[in-house]
Amino acid sequence: MSEKALVGIVMGSDSDLPIMSEAAKTLSTFGVEYRVDVLSAHRTPQKTAEYAQQAIQRGIGVIIAGAGGAAHLAGNLAAWTVLPVLGVPIASSPLQGIDALLSTVQMPGGVPVATLGIGKSGAKNAALLAVQILSLAFPELQKKLIHFKKEMEKGIEKKNATLEV
Amino acid sequence: MSEKALVGIVMGSDSDLPIMSEAAKTLSTFGVEYRVDVLSAHRTPQKTAEYAQQAIQRGIGVIIAGAGGAAHLAGNLAAWTVLPVLGVPIASSPLQGIDALLSTVQMPGGVPVATLGIGKSGAKNAALLAVQILSLAFPELQKKLIHFKKEMEKGIEKKNATLEV
Amino acid sequence: MSEKALVGIVMGSDSDLPIMSEAAKTLSTFGVEYRVDVLSAHRTPQKTAEYAQQAIQRGIGVIIAGAGGAAHLAGNLAAWTVLPVLGVPIASSPLQGIDALLSTVQMPGGVPVATLGIGKSGAKNAALLAVQILSLAFPELQKKLIHFKKEMEKGIEKKNATLEV
Amino acid sequence: MSEKALVGIVMGSDSDLPIMSEAAKTLSTFGVEYRVDVLSAHRTPQKTAEYAQQAIQRGIGVIIAGAGGAAHLAGNLAAWTVLPVLGVPIASSPLQGIDALLSTVQMPGGVPVATLGIGKSGAKNAALLAVQILSLAFPELQKKLIHFKKEMEKGIEKKNATLEV
Amino acid sequence: MSEKALVGIVMGSDSDLPIMSEAAKTLSTFGVEYRVDVLSAHRTPQKTAEYAQQAIQRGIGVIIAGAGGAAHLAGNLAAWTVLPVLGVPIASSPLQGIDALLSTVQMPGGVPVATLGIGKSGAKNAALLAVQILSLAFPELQKKLIHFKKEMEKGIEKKNATLEV
Amino acid sequence: MSEKALVGIVMGSDSDLPIMSEAAKTLSTFGVEYRVDVLSAHRTPQKTAEYAQQAIQRGIGVIIAGAGGAAHLAGNLAAWTVLPVLGVPIASSPLQGIDALLSTVQMPGGVPVATLGIGKSGAKNAALLAVQILSLAFPELQKKLIHFKKEMEKGIEKKNATLEV
Amino acid sequence: MSEKALVGIVMGSDSDLPIMSEAAKTLSTFGVEYRVDVLSAHRTPQKTAEYAQQAIQRGIGVIIAGAGGAAHLAGNLAAWTVLPVLGVPIASSPLQGIDALLSTVQMPGGVPVATLGIGKSGAKNAALLAVQILSLAFPELQKKLIHFKKEMEKGIEKKNATLEV
Amino acid sequence: MSEKALVGIVMGSDSDLPIMSEAAKTLSTFGVEYRVDVLSAHRTPQKTAEYAQQAIQRGIGVIIAGAGGAAHLAGNLAAWTVLPVLGVPIASSPLQGIDALLSTVQMPGGVPVATLGIGKSGAKNAALLAVQILSLAFPELQKKLIHFKKEMEKGIEKKNATLEV
Repeated sequence: MSEKALVGIVMGSDSDLPIMSEAAKTLSTFGVEYRVDVLSAHRTPQKTAEYAQQAIQRGIGVIIAGAGGAAHLAGNLAAWTVLPVLGVPIASSPLQGIDALLSTVQMPGGVPVATLGIGKSGAKNAALLAVQILSLAFPELQKKLIHFKKEMEKGIEKKNATLEV
Repeated sequence: MSEKALVGIVMGSDSDLPIMSEAAKTLSTFGVEYRVDVLSAHRTPQKTAEYAQQAIQRGIGVIIAGAGGAAHLAGNLAAWTVLPVLGVPIASSPLQGIDALLSTVQMPGGVPVATLGIGKSGAKNAALLAVQILSLAFPELQKKLIHFKKEMEKGIEKKNATLEV
Repeated sequence: MSEKALVGIVMGSDSDLPIMSEAAKTLSTFGVEYRVDVLSAHRTPQKTAEYAQQAIQRGIGVIIAGAGGAAHLAGNLAAWTVLPVLGVPIASSPLQGIDALLSTVQMPGGVPVATLGIGKSGAKNAALLAVQILSLAFPELQKKLIHFKKEMEKGIEKKNATLEV
Repeated sequence: MSEKALVGIVMGSDSDLPIMSEAAKTLSTFGVEYRVDVLSAHRTPQKTAEYAQQAIQRGIGVIIAGAGGAAHLAGNLAAWTVLPVLGVPIASSPLQGIDALLSTVQMPGGVPVATLGIGKSGAKNAALLAVQILSLAFPELQKKLIHFKKEMEKGIEKKNATLEV
Repeated sequence: MSEKALVGIVMGSDSDLPIMSEAAKTLSTFGVEYRVDVLSAHRTPQKTAEYAQQAIQRGIGVIIAGAGGAAHLAGNLAAWTVLPVLGVPIASSPLQGIDALLSTVQMPGGVPVATLGIGKSGAKNAALLAVQILSLAFPELQKKLIHFKKEMEKGIEKKNATLEV
Repeated sequence: MSEKALVGIVMGSDSDLPIMSEAAKTLSTFGVEYRVDVLSAHRTPQKTAEYAQQAIQRGIGVIIAGAGGAAHLAGNLAAWTVLPVLGVPIASSPLQGIDALLSTVQMPGGVPVATLGIGKSGAKNAALLAVQILSLAFPELQKKLIHFKKEMEKGIEKKNATLEV
Repeated sequence: MSEKALVGIVMGSDSDLPIMSEAAKTLSTFGVEYRVDVLSAHRTPQKTAEYAQQAIQRGIGVIIAGAGGAAHLAGNLAAWTVLPVLGVPIASSPLQGIDALLSTVQMPGGVPVATLGIGKSGAKNAALLAVQILSLAFPELQKKLIHFKKEMEKGIEKKNATLEV
Repeated sequence: MSEKALVGIVMGSDSDLPIMSEAAKTLSTFGVEYRVDVLSAHRTPQKTAEYAQQAIQRGIGVIIAGAGGAAHLAGNLAAWTVLPVLGVPIASSPLQGIDALLSTVQMPGGVPVATLGIGKSGAKNAALLAVQILSLAFPELQKKLIHFKKEMEKGIEKKNATLEV
């Protein structure tokens, strides 16, 4: 975690950490500074509003928000800031994430939330999307992304070469 | 609409009025004062927070909130007040209200939203639920509710008697 | 459990108790008297009708009903009383609660059921909603609710402060 | 309609008549006497209970119940009688009948509802199922059913023969 | 199992037996003779057709069919007989039974399948529905059903009396 | 239509013709002979079984089957033949084709149905898939498919070039 | 449209233009240059791959992709570039966009697609998200976004002030 | 695995192997040569395009592709070849395969994917469908299919004969 965080990772409950730590790990891989906070749209609305309102001054460029159930966190942050807000739906109710997905993605015109897939893949992809976004201003990140993409490709090719059926 | 409103009806967009006016009409039937506001969890978050925070001082006893899509309005109001908040999901997206229903009802433990059915029936029932809630403090409303229930029963019986198959 | 119960907690099967005891625990926290009954809309319709018809005389102010599958219990009670009926859908079938949710929430105009989320969060929130409703007549409960909200907020803030990523 | 009805057709609202009249028409084809009533599980619970409790004495052998939304009517009747109750889900809400289907079919063990498809096909099939059930006691109905099946088969074959592509 | 079976229980795979044995057990309770067969609409279509075509001559009055996935068994049997066919959807695929439910219930006009709930409750209820159907011709079964209903009611009341919260 | 049909197009009802004629039109484009029949898994099971059993002798190489609701037609044909059976789900019920899709695609291991998308696109694609399948034995069809693919590509490019925003 | 486009708007079919033109209109409001192309992941895969591979050299910073059904366009573009790709699901099949939403959002770890809501709101929000992303590198856009947010807020407040119930 | 493979089995991740090996095993039973590759539409788009473009020259007749989540693999391959592409949706996300099913089956007109059921049954059936397709050109495979069908039938009959209820 860092005072000079470019990315703010927020989650609705500390029980979401095993999912959202995928985002943190991925940002670390790219050397992007981040901070992690537990903030609830419903249980700490004042703190959530303040976090979003102060994010730009603090130097944050992208916010990643993970939540389950009636997942309002990403939309709530997006209401209070003009920074890009990336939403990660978490499958924490018996409905297995379809509630979190629809609550996150179906935002009204005027207040976008960039929604990723449900769960760990979504958290990882939120971090990658944050790096892609930041790479427009920080060109060295684009090189790292291209490298990452090539390594990922090699990884699949290696798995293919060694597949035992 | 009334300065001495006991019930606050709120909707995320003025396009929701044809649905939410069912709530207003029903409250009028019971002689319960109400006010109607357009407030958006996403587009006017400050006004929404203030509305909820001031509701008790203003004398409001129950809040009814209707919204579609990623319907955060009811949950958002509930985050800022301890008054009962009744949520009406509205079918305003291609998903026909299942998004609004799940966004409204699947609230985390600690912040309840009393959710009604999708659309006009839900709006009417939100008003009736508000009257039921207020009737605990205003006994004359309970008499009106019992009368309403009897009239409704008679209505069905009359329809039954005159049914032409 | 109490003879002078203000809240009646009802469930369709004793197998629902691990869910519905969340409601009981929460009411205890607020010092609100309650009673708990197993009543089935389908297996004990007479008892269910009597329970609802007698609830007002018994001094009950709010009914909380939890059921799974084709969850008719809350709607069935609401048919026989003008008290607020709060419905908790329970995920007891392979469909994981979407059947119980739709069976509880999609009530026809005229007979509201205040529906909460599926499962334990819903049961806890039903109790909180009951306290919110009762607080209109019992002002000391409103103070307790405000205190509860603040403690919940502090709890999240504490988790945030001690989060280890 | 008939005093000596073998089949009772019940619907939750007179707006369901265009659907449920398919059942009536089909029964007429087989010469099976029926009666039609508007009864609501939620708005006329007493009448609904009485209807089901008195059905056997009245000579009714099978009950067909159509309802939409949180469709409790069939399950409610089944709670009060040991006659076979056939449920027809009606698509009267924005959710297009999935709510009515799940509310009708997902009954708890001990109280069956024989559920048919959503809408007109379901209403027609409810009538045919009623005739199939009655045919166990009235063998002449079995002959009519075999004839009906053959005519239906011929109808398809005729359409096939005259199909213009 | 019995040569003089009044009810034929059929399932698409022997892996469905743990579900469908609920139907067998319930029929035994009522002293109704049954037979159990594994027949697949897709893997033994000839046997399935023969079974349905011969069922009336064999003295079978009601067929109960359980299947999962694209559950065509009940509809397939209904295509070849005018006996009442009761369908039990089984949750054997990752979709948890919604596929089996829709495949069973959404039959075209002209060929009814009386569909019960997904899984064990549905299998039990199929047996009860079969007894209800047979009771129209065998009045002693109606007495047993009334007794069963009373015992079930007593069971719930006993659970209520001894509930420990 | 042709006596020497290589492809058999079958539909459960003549009301499905506006959808299934897309398959016929597409086959005509490729000069592939086809025949069209109305056959119902539920209403003409004998004819359906015979059709599938005789298809190979008749020289049919691929069967395309379109049906709605509990769409058993494709699976039913597949049960009686070892020819490839292509299934087209049709949105003919209030559930808008999800019932037909699941009833067609979720076949048990051992009896495949090659399922296409819901409606007209699916019918067109079934014809293209049939041509792809036949092209393994008739190489000139492969050339036509490559030509078709290029024309389709050109069509999109032309639309792109002339797009007016 | 512009040679110096910062945003590339892509759609799978020209029939998607009425939806995707919402994105174009919104970008115009912010003075952001864009280009619009019809590209199909399935019908013009080569052009689609080339478009994504050349986007960075062309000076494009963000790609917005709209598609319906099995909506692979956004994911396909994301496979070939490290630019942020924003996906807009379009409700063009009987399933009303749930197919397009899931096909767009549920991307595997490593290849993010920033998914917006279904239809016109989603297209508008994709443009706003693109502006938010670009604003990290072009600070004057952030000012415009703050102005836009305030105007939107005023718009709601004005509607509230003039609401006629 | 074989250089002279007639069937190409492809999967998006090596974690899909336990599902897709069902296809391999089934092809082995029929003596059909196959090869297995890990190829990702999103992580190795170039390799995936090359695989599809070269498949015909390599002598491949049918491609089987399994993938989960936003399962684009089958559609992506189909975009680059005129060979029949068979898609197997895999339940690898919290949504349990409905995302993979819709992403695979809802292809636009012009680019068919023959979709099988979710998971192991689907993988097995993809292999059988491949054999059915190849049997049009290799008549000895048709004999094997007829034999397979008879053995499957006998298997069910044996299970029926030995069923213990």
